[in-house]
Amino acid sequence: MPNSFGHLFRITTWGESHGPAIGVTVDGCPPRLPISAAEIQFELDRRRPGQSDITTPRKEADSVEILSGVYEGQTTGTPISLLVRNTDQRSSAYNEMKAAFRPSHADFTYQTTFGIRDPNGGGRSSARETIGRVAAGAIAKKILASRGLEIRAYITRIHDIAAPAEALAEFPSLEQIEATAVRCPHGETAARMIERIKAVRSEGDSVGGVIQCRVRGVPVGLGEPVFDRLEADLAKAMLSLPATKGFEVGSGFGGSMLRGSEHNDLFENRDGRIRTTSNRSGGVQGGISNGEELLFNVAFKPTATILQAQPTVDLAGNPTELMGKGRHDPCVVPRAVPIVEAMTALVLLDHWLRDSAQNHSFEF
Amino acid sequence: MPNSFGHLFRITTWGESHGPAIGVTVDGCPPRLPISAAEIQFELDRRRPGQSDITTPRKEADSVEILSGVYEGQTTGTPISLLVRNTDQRSSAYNEMKAAFRPSHADFTYQTTFGIRDPNGGGRSSARETIGRVAAGAIAKKILASRGLEIRAYITRIHDIAAPAEALAEFPSLEQIEATAVRCPHGETAARMIERIKAVRSEGDSVGGVIQCRVRGVPVGLGEPVFDRLEADLAKAMLSLPATKGFEVGSGFGGSMLRGSEHNDLFENRDGRIRTTSNRSGGVQGGISNGEELLFNVAFKPTATILQAQPTVDLAGNPTELMGKGRHDPCVVPRAVPIVEAMTALVLLDHWLRDSAQNHSFEF
Amino acid sequence: MPNSFGHLFRITTWGESHGPAIGVTVDGCPPRLPISAAEIQFELDRRRPGQSDITTPRKEADSVEILSGVYEGQTTGTPISLLVRNTDQRSSAYNEMKAAFRPSHADFTYQTTFGIRDPNGGGRSSARETIGRVAAGAIAKKILASRGLEIRAYITRIHDIAAPAEALAEFPSLEQIEATAVRCPHGETAARMIERIKAVRSEGDSVGGVIQCRVRGVPVGLGEPVFDRLEADLAKAMLSLPATKGFEVGSGFGGSMLRGSEHNDLFENRDGRIRTTSNRSGGVQGGISNGEELLFNVAFKPTATILQAQPTVDLAGNPTELMGKGRHDPCVVPRAVPIVEAMTALVLLDHWLRDSAQNHSFEF
Amino acid sequence: MPNSFGHLFRITTWGESHGPAIGVTVDGCPPRLPISAAEIQFELDRRRPGQSDITTPRKEADSVEILSGVYEGQTTGTPISLLVRNTDQRSSAYNEMKAAFRPSHADFTYQTTFGIRDPNGGGRSSARETIGRVAAGAIAKKILASRGLEIRAYITRIHDIAAPAEALAEFPSLEQIEATAVRCPHGETAARMIERIKAVRSEGDSVGGVIQCRVRGVPVGLGEPVFDRLEADLAKAMLSLPATKGFEVGSGFGGSMLRGSEHNDLFENRDGRIRTTSNRSGGVQGGISNGEELLFNVAFKPTATILQAQPTVDLAGNPTELMGKGRHDPCVVPRAVPIVEAMTALVLLDHWLRDSAQNHSFEF
Repeated sequence: MPNSFGHLFRITTWGESHGPAIGVTVDGCPPRLPISAAEIQFELDRRRPGQSDITTPRKEADSVEILSGVYEGQTTGTPISLLVRNTDQRSSAYNEMKAAFRPSHADFTYQTTFGIRDPNGGGRSSARETIGRVAAGAIAKKILASRGLEIRAYITRIHDIAAPAEALAEFPSLEQIEATAVRCPHGETAARMIERIKAVRSEGDSVGGVIQCRVRGVPVGLGEPVFDRLEADLAKAMLSLPATKGFEVGSGFGGSMLRGSEHNDLFENRDGRIRTTSNRSGGVQGGISNGEELLFNVAFKPTATILQAQPTVDLAGNPTELMGKGRHDPCVVPRAVPIVEAMTALVLLDHWLRDSAQNHSFEF
Repeated sequence: MPNSFGHLFRITTWGESHGPAIGVTVDGCPPRLPISAAEIQFELDRRRPGQSDITTPRKEADSVEILSGVYEGQTTGTPISLLVRNTDQRSSAYNEMKAAFRPSHADFTYQTTFGIRDPNGGGRSSARETIGRVAAGAIAKKILASRGLEIRAYITRIHDIAAPAEALAEFPSLEQIEATAVRCPHGETAARMIERIKAVRSEGDSVGGVIQCRVRGVPVGLGEPVFDRLEADLAKAMLSLPATKGFEVGSGFGGSMLRGSEHNDLFENRDGRIRTTSNRSGGVQGGISNGEELLFNVAFKPTATILQAQPTVDLAGNPTELMGKGRHDPCVVPRAVPIVEAMTALVLLDHWLRDSAQNHSFEF
Repeated sequence: MPNSFGHLFRITTWGESHGPAIGVTVDGCPPRLPISAAEIQFELDRRRPGQSDITTPRKEADSVEILSGVYEGQTTGTPISLLVRNTDQRSSAYNEMKAAFRPSHADFTYQTTFGIRDPNGGGRSSARETIGRVAAGAIAKKILASRGLEIRAYITRIHDIAAPAEALAEFPSLEQIEATAVRCPHGETAARMIERIKAVRSEGDSVGGVIQCRVRGVPVGLGEPVFDRLEADLAKAMLSLPATKGFEVGSGFGGSMLRGSEHNDLFENRDGRIRTTSNRSGGVQGGISNGEELLFNVAFKPTATILQAQPTVDLAGNPTELMGKGRHDPCVVPRAVPIVEAMTALVLLDHWLRDSAQNHSFEF
Repeated sequence: MPNSFGHLFRITTWGESHGPAIGVTVDGCPPRLPISAAEIQFELDRRRPGQSDITTPRKEADSVEILSGVYEGQTTGTPISLLVRNTDQRSSAYNEMKAAFRPSHADFTYQTTFGIRDPNGGGRSSARETIGRVAAGAIAKKILASRGLEIRAYITRIHDIAAPAEALAEFPSLEQIEATAVRCPHGETAARMIERIKAVRSEGDSVGGVIQCRVRGVPVGLGEPVFDRLEADLAKAMLSLPATKGFEVGSGFGGSMLRGSEHNDLFENRDGRIRTTSNRSGGVQGGISNGEELLFNVAFKPTATILQAQPTVDLAGNPTELMGKGRHDPCVVPRAVPIVEAMTALVLLDHWLRDSAQNHSFEF
């Protein structure tokens, strides 16, 4: 159950960083969706290691195989099993890590909770686990796109380098975002971010940042109060990603500095539709999408693995020192962009199906 | 399902603001817990309207009745049904709101999604819905307290008035928090916060703020990767509360400004236990509690209902104006403190049971 | 969770036989359904004790109150809370049962599992628990009826008295079934059944029987392989009822005596629709309804409480004797008829919503 | 979700009969269980086609690969992914079946529900789907065995040939059951059953039968009223299997012919433990295991595919005729024995974990 996500469009992921493969099963997919491995691969390539000179040099093609649920190019309504083989495994790089706990990693908690852990590349706690999310998310994205939803995530800040607000006023295009390795749609800022990432890497250090995600074309009606509010499920989705430390929707933490008279989004009739004149709500009111642009931010901490010696303890609790090895991203945020989009798609599609079921199956 | 929360300690809430009653059913409660209505009432009284001069004057005793699941003062393992009658209903105050959508409220999304809504006091979208959460949370809290867990929420900021960091260094006592109506443990700051709330109320306006929650005594092992990480379930719990806009755990958004070498929590052996020398992780690593203090922040927007005329539209989409009536909190944050604690208790207890099941049922 | 049933139309029941009340919460109900307490009461009256001279004389009006989820006579899409007060409580009748375990009752397993139990009238293990199911089922039934589904359960056998097969060839009307207290649509057999029940009662004994349930108007498409096959969910629904010992769909156990060439249902084109020439499948093929009449049987054991002295043990395991007291049905099967219908409605509606979500939300 | 089973020990299966592979993911497995592919293979070999001269000659090694969740021979608490490649695919055998609906198969309902189906070997509706259940069940069985539970299924009837009751009085050994290809522990009856199966096969026909399953060593406490009664979850598990038509626990349908005074299981103190003198309850009372032997029966219909021409309709609804091709079992029941055991293990282990969580995590 802890490795499943969603109620009606439900994914179950499995696999370890250096095990034979990583995979996901998608249950509940609407039938007759045309889908190809290439379409899923497109998103996996955006997440893939070694895609640019600011990511880990681990070489993984991350080639996806469709093992079930698709017949003659269309989904059949039965579970879709997707599998990606791990190819570039170098367990030897992790020998030291078997014996000691890496600071701010999952080693200690996994070992203590389960009494055992696969130490190679962090095993299940590795961010390679997100491959399954991205592969499943590619399917969800295509379904939502067929109804006009566009999901766009991008970086607004790396370390203390932030894109200017005005540069983000427009809904960015995929091209703008993919134009640079750092996936910040503001070119000039992107250049500075890349420079910063290279600088900290050369010092054996790491940095974090913030991803913003926006969705346009969302209908009114997604989200189910009281517990499965749209922002609640998005918050869970985002905080379930490795390295995330925060989530805010619409005005977020800054919104708590405003007065009600400044914060409220007023309704107006625009072109025959009820719209709001501002969007501090971030596209959600009362836990349900209101038809405005969905907007939220996710904070990522700096990569825990750094190429510097750090004090820690071994499995017996004795003091020791650990120096990061293996191949790591000095900043995970650029590769997290497609992951944030995938999780967003999974949440939205699940709620779309839930809304259909409760609110559009019966007319009385 | 959208009105249920938790997997093993599972609550289902129901009820509208001005309906006959509000309630909750708790399923999966461990048997033989001594529990009384008075113990549940204690927490409800902390959430109750009219408890101080900075909250809504709506008069509700919010008296809880135990209808099932308790026999001779002990839980029996069967579902516990708790009921609170609504007594101070003044539907007439909402007559205008039947015809128009209140800005930044759930009126529009509920009406559009369901094609119908109970307009009295916001119906199901009212924060009175949280009564069920607090009642159920009181039970969870007592169970956790029996194992030494202490959950403490308090206000760190109202509008732009923040308690100084050093005033929050120590784990605050319940007495410190309850000492003022605003539930900020730093007395001097509390006084300024109260003043601010009264000032904005006199202007027919409202403010928001930030609640911090800390838990001590948490064992290693709570939280289930990859989707049900502890921080993911806490984020969902908090963003499922009315008026919340953000969540951050440990270093949060600020943590994304640090380098890895500054952010990592180093392990050490302290008194024979493996501990970290800092706690930027906020008590969670790899999605599982690491035995350090759990710490997170929740952002609340200013109350949407303000006693000022605001432009909006009616059900047909025609422009109109609406002036807040009814009895409302100029700032919901002080009354949200026990609600945050309740949701925290529900998340932690559910994960405690899950950890017991998977990791402590079998020895091989 | 164990007190909840259904995924999208989800009910949660609570309450003990001699506690203050019994209730149910319905989550996920489609909005704008016109529903009144009287409509729910109609089904509760069919299940009510004291309704005829072959049922328990316990006097309970079983009056239902709607506490939430309905506004101006229509469902609002929010949880519907239904409550029935217990009025005729005579706990003293159960004093002896506190000290010893009634044979073939839940006393021993509840006591051993939970370490505590409410002994009054069996507490949660009493069949009064099914009040919540019937109340929620009344809503489900009305929704399904709006699409033309008719659910009809009736008794085909009491003890060894069975209705002749030819008498059940036609789909019985509600009037035929309600014509006698025993709810067997074949009048002559019904009379003999009633006679038998009275005879065993006069001997302080009890009998069981078999209920058949048929549903017509079922569309193709209800049921979700591989685990949530329609017959699987019906089997679970029926075996979750007190006193049930068996379930069979279509040809059932008898079908296992046939050859494939005798058992197969051949397809034909009847009036432009694909139909089967026989219905040994019972309306389900591959786990999904095939548009034919749904048909299944449920076996009920004789009531465990008999007015004869029976050897047993006390809580300490010492031999003792117990003589049934309290007010009991000598045969529970007639009152189980509306309960079987309710559970059937809950299963079908839940699958209807699930089918809508997966198969009718998107066209590609 | 429809392809997942269990709450805490949760499996998700995927795969089509003639797709590249069939698989299962197990989530929630207790950590540190020593497990090897060979142990899982042992159960798969019992289910494998071509294992004897009364089963289908389809040649599949059904070799299982462990892709995740096991490290150095022990489970790690993370999801276990198991994969079996399909090797003997002969899709051409199914060309005719693309165009017409096989009687009493899932072709029509799948096509109508999903608007598409994989016709090769029945696609997802093939009994090859149960490979994942058996593989996951092997793990559950091993865990339960570590606590002394023995699960034993066997055939009691094929067509109208039934083993004598006295031959089943003792709990049969695995050796007795595996002694014959038909898995009936009574040798003489087994011989007649095999003869019958061969006879009907030679006529191009098929037969069904009944499997009995018994479990000894079950503790008191498994099963969660009111909906997740042990027998309810077993009934669902069994009716979720292809070709099943009925389920009965303990006295079953026959029990409904007895009087209460004949049916009740009296309690006695045997060797210091509270036991019952008879077991018409089948090991479950009030929905919870009572420590007696668990006993239930499952009815299987005759195989739908027969090597005779049968009238049916094509996809457009036009009359046509279909002659069974492909390689099929004239009787599926012998190979269903390990499948029944697997499902039983899954239900029992899931309830074991649930019981641990609710009833053994806290002492007050």
